[in-house]
Order: sequence, then structure tokens, then C-alpha cells
Amino acid sequence: MATVYEQRRARLAQILKKRDIDMFFVCDPVNVGYLCGFTGGDSFLMVGRDAAAMLLTDGRFETFLKEEIPDLAIYVRKTSEPFSRALAKASKEFFPSKESGSYAVESGTISLRMFELVESVLDRTAVPVCGAIEALRMKKDRTEITAIRRSARAAIEGFGAIKAGLQKEWSEIDLRNELDYQMRRAGADDVSFPTIVAVGSRAALPHAEPTCKLIGEGESVLIDWGAKYRGYASDLTRVLMTRKKISKKLTDIYQTVLKAQQKAIQTIRPGITAGEVDRAARQVIEEAGYGRCFNHGLGHGLGLAIHDAGAFSVGNDLQLRPGMVMTVEPGIYLPGRLGVRIEDDVLITPGGAEVLTRSLGSSLEEMFVPLP
Amino acid sequence: MATVYEQRRARLAQILKKRDIDMFFVCDPVNVGYLCGFTGGDSFLMVGRDAAAMLLTDGRFETFLKEEIPDLAIYVRKTSEPFSRALAKASKEFFPSKESGSYAVESGTISLRMFELVESVLDRTAVPVCGAIEALRMKKDRTEITAIRRSARAAIEGFGAIKAGLQKEWSEIDLRNELDYQMRRAGADDVSFPTIVAVGSRAALPHAEPTCKLIGEGESVLIDWGAKYRGYASDLTRVLMTRKKISKKLTDIYQTVLKAQQKAIQTIRPGITAGEVDRAARQVIEEAGYGRCFNHGLGHGLGLAIHDAGAFSVGNDLQLRPGMVMTVEPGIYLPGRLGVRIEDDVLITPGGAEVLTRSLGSSLEEMFVPLP
Repeated sequence: MATVYEQRRARLAQILKKRDIDMFFVCDPVNVGYLCGFTGGDSFLMVGRDAAAMLLTDGRFETFLKEEIPDLAIYVRKTSEPFSRALAKASKEFFPSKESGSYAVESGTISLRMFELVESVLDRTAVPVCGAIEALRMKKDRTEITAIRRSARAAIEGFGAIKAGLQKEWSEIDLRNELDYQMRRAGADDVSFPTIVAVGSRAALPHAEPTCKLIGEGESVLIDWGAKYRGYASDLTRVLMTRKKISKKLTDIYQTVLKAQQKAIQTIRPGITAGEVDRAARQVIEEAGYGRCFNHGLGHGLGLAIHDAGAFSVGNDLQLRPGMVMTVEPGIYLPGRLGVRIEDDVLITPGGAEVLTRSLGSSLEEMFVPLP
Repeated sequence: MATVYEQRRARLAQILKKRDIDMFFVCDPVNVGYLCGFTGGDSFLMVGRDAAAMLLTDGRFETFLKEEIPDLAIYVRKTSEPFSRALAKASKEFFPSKESGSYAVESGTISLRMFELVESVLDRTAVPVCGAIEALRMKKDRTEITAIRRSARAAIEGFGAIKAGLQKEWSEIDLRNELDYQMRRAGADDVSFPTIVAVGSRAALPHAEPTCKLIGEGESVLIDWGAKYRGYASDLTRVLMTRKKISKKLTDIYQTVLKAQQKAIQTIRPGITAGEVDRAARQVIEEAGYGRCFNHGLGHGLGLAIHDAGAFSVGNDLQLRPGMVMTVEPGIYLPGRLGVRIEDDVLITPGGAEVLTRSLGSSLEEMFVPLP
């Protein structure tokens, strides 16, 4: 039976055939991992139109590769061997139709220097290809969905731990440190992006880095966090309410954002466009009078990258298909006053959407953690 | 008085003048931060031969920039504005001698796609430059040395905490989780690279990722870790001895590696070459009969990157200068049996070398943490 990597390369090979390309020189380490399972870095994968592959790597990874990925063809460059010579030998071995064959490079990630080196060694003009493997990665296979579920579970467990132990004397940085630690204790390999913690009005700043501001200083704290598990990201946002009573404004805004999110999730189904889903959420927020306060897209693809291809954005005509995993994260921001965003991770299914992070809860009642 | 960023740009401007380049289009986010103080990402810096600069950024960062770096000229691209149009307008504003002026790009980091876009907008051929800013970054200024000292302190304090609390039931992953957490509690913003924890024979594997193996399963545990503080990395390695008595082989190897490291550090002074320092350590290891078991360079530059430019490697004729910060990390590896590496961070001073991580201790006696 074909491995998951062979299946992925078979999908890539179809694209190569269609575009009449004989070999794809893959340099993005995430894409290399996706197509052959090797995640050590500093290595390059050649994929042929027959879906065969060869990894150009170095001695540090030889033992690992022979044990963990024994079926993968590898060329091991010695420390003393110049990269260009190794590439010449490896490509000749893998890709013998050197004089006539065409090849592609990933123009969005290959550096100018590496590109010039590859061109000089292969002695032909490359076909620049951008986003093709990223487009393949949009539809997740079973292995990937399992990893995202595990990643979401670690993120949710970590959050549960800090919610239970929240201290008003913690700074945003302290909360970040505890949350990141607790996600790992819950099985995460790492965080999937730098955790955002924003007390009170700081929640209105996009991409707020944690500061020394204390949790007790505001009536709410926005937390945007995610775990990484076997390479796969989860991505969540919640706003905890740290007072017994919160302002009417904050209450209204919270309920509006939640309603917008629920509306978007109900709208999701195969065949609909990403723009229509964005519209569904945006309409709820506009009707509540906060249209100008929702100044970003509704969500993005999620997978090996925290921002995988695909976006719930205004007018995007990307058609949803089963197997896509996306975030749904409407927000309302009043600069200098407050900010609310609610974010969940959603798998597009044949029947609609499965919220992978539902167990976390998102009702306003569940967000109350009043501090003494 | 010129800011530290102006001083750095003035050094870059001298290179531009020498090479008759009018403008440097900087895209590496680390170099952008080094030259203007902005670390938000997704932004590009144009530096002129008069050391002036303009940042091409987007709306997310506008408030931050106006508050934190008010003196920096910025062009804020709106969400609806295509990048190419923004670049055309910003470059015309910053770099009016468009028709005749020459400009450089960082060929080692600019992507092929971005390079083609810049070339089409500026409508001239770029000068590919590789490693010029990285070479400037080798000599650290006072701000940078202070940050590296703080980074080293957080790494040392974190290590002290896990050494004091070490449990034989911890897995390598548990130890990694605790150490990363403790470094942050000691003031680190983050880790500087994925922490390595390797019990017993796993220490002989290069770049060993932590596994479920328990600390109690070996007689030693190799830990290679570092903190990040305001962007600056520290990088340390120690081998803790978890038995009351360790084998004669491990004792001999430890003492040999330590002697090699001390010899290298005594050799360091301005004017000597990096290769000579590598030689000094390698000779000690060769004389002890382990020459073939030290299969990597003696050290590397340290700063904003965990591998900054500069390397203590065989035959490297790079001359040491005051202000450089380097790791010194000899090792001896017996595959399948054991591995020892001792790594410290060293500032090259006018008189020789200052070990920034000396307070950690490295004698064999200090490495004993026998577990019950």
C-alpha cells in the first residue's frame, strides 16, 4: 500500500504532468517534510513526474534517515563536498534526462542565491512555481486531521490549567509562560506561534506581544494561542472576564462576536466560497453597528503552517472542500478601550463543519473567572 | 547623538559607498531589526548610501512604529494596496534617483519571487549581495553585549533550577519542558533554539531531539540549550552525571573535552585566526586519541542568530577582533556508547577572551547530580 507520502507525491506528480515539468526541486523545509516525512531541515527534495523522490541531505541526518525513513532515496553530502557538486551528482542520479528535462523551483521560498546555484548546476532555465504544494496541503488527509485534533487537545488542556490557576498578580508575560508550559505538559511539542496575551484595552492592538501589565488591571484578558503536535498547529482565541460584573459594552460586543462566529460556522459547507462565509459573519457585526471595528479576515487555513493556504476573506472565491481545516475568528476592536475575538478551528466535512475545538466552550458564562 | 541604529547604518553606508551602490533593499527580518529596531516582521527596509532609511510596512504596525520608533521614516501600505504599487511609491519617495541609481538585494534571503517583483518595479538590475550585513553583525556593540549577558544569565538560572530539581522519572521531553519554562521564569523571552536533551548513548547523535527516554536510564545526560533575550541568543551545553560513580571512559573523555575547551579559550585573542583556535582544541583531543570522534567545528558566532557569521572551523582564516561573540564547544562522540560536549559563550576582548557563561561552572565535580 502506498504510504501517505507516496500518496501526496502522486498528487504533486499529476500537477507536474499537467504542466509538463519533469522534476520539482523542493526547498521549503515544511514542504520537504510534507512530501517525504523528513523534518530535519537543511535538505532538498527532488520529486519526479512519476512521484519518485530523492532527498539531498548531509551526514548529520544519515543515521536518522536510514532508521526512520528507510525507503527514501537519499544523497548524503559529505562536509568536505561543495553543495554545487553534491547537487550535480544527486540530480544526475535522480534525474538522468538532464539535457532535455524541465524542472520547477518554489519561487516563493527559494533564495535568489540558491536559485542561481541550481540553475548553473542544472544548466537550464527553471520554471518558477508558487504555491502549488501549499494548495495541495489545503486538503488534509487522515494522518493530518488526527495530528490537528491532538494539537487542539493540548491547547485546550493547557488553557484549562491556566484558567483554573489564574492570578491577578500575574503579568501578561507570566500568563504566557504558564500557558506555554501547560500546553507542553499536555503533550504539545511546542507552541504553534508566539502566544498573545492582552489585558483590557491592549486587546484592541493587533498582534499584541505580552508585556508586564498585570491581569488584575483590566476587566478582561484576550488570549490567542495554539499548540504544535507532530508539526501540526492549532490556533484558538478566548477572552476571559476577570471581574464579577463587566460593562454593558463588553457584554454586547462579546455576544455579537459569538453570534457572528456561530453564523459563519453554520454557513460552512462544501461548495460554498470562502468569501460567503466571511460575509455571513461580517453581516452580523455590521448589523450590530461594529462593521468598521472588524478590520481583518474571518479566518485562515491551518495545518503545518499556522497560516496555511486558504482564507475566509472579503470576496474570496475559493470553494470549500471536505478535508480543509480553517480558523473562524471574528473580532471587534475599539482602540484604546477593548477588544474581543473568538477563534475556533473547523474541519470542513461533506455535511458542513466540525468544530475541532468545541470542547473548550465559548459562551460568555464560561469565560467568567472573577479574581478576588 | 546618533542612535545605535544610525551607527549601524553608517557602517553599512560605508560598504555601499565602496561598492558604488545607492540603496540596499533589506528583506531579512533579523537584518531589518538590526538596522532600524523594528522586529514586527513582514516589512522591508531601504537604506541609502547616506545611512538614511525607510521602512515599507503595513497598517498592523503603524501605531507601534509611531510610538516606539518615531524617528524612522515609514511607508504604510494599506490592505487594499498591491505590494508592487506600494514598493513603487515608497522607493520613489525614498530613492528618487530611480533612473540612474544602483541598488542591492540580499541574495541569500530574498526569495526569487520577491526579487523578480523588486526588479520589475525598480526597472533595473539589482546587485546581489550576500552576507554583508551578517559580517557587520559579527562585531557586537554595547547594547548587544548587554543583551547577550542577560540571555546567558536566564539560561544559567534556568539550568540551575532543573539541576536542583532533576528527577530520574523525568523523560528527556519532561526535562526540556521544565528547562524551557525555567529560562522564561528567569527572564528569557523564549528559547534561542529547540533544546536538546540526550540521555546516555543518545548524546552521541548530532542534534538529538528529546524523546520519552527517562533520565534514570543512563549514567549521563547531555543538555544543549539557550535563551533568547531581546532577540539575542545564548547557547550552552553541559553533561550532567546522574550516577554516583561513572565509567573511567566517560571520566577520561569529559576531562579531555574540558581541557580542549580551556586550551581553546586561552588561545583566543585579537589577531589570531579562527582556524588557529579550532586547532588548539582539536590538538588536545587528537593527542588523547579521540581525533576522529570530534566531527564538527569548535564553535560559531552568536548574536541575533543562534548561528551568527563566523566559525571556529578547520583552516578558517577569519581574524578575531574585539567585540565578536562566539561559542566554544568541543565534543567527543562514541556512537552507540556516549557523547560529551562542553559549550560556553565567549566575548573577544582587546586582551583575550571573556567567558560570558563562566558562572555556570564546568568541572566534572560540578556536573555530578546523582539520582537515588
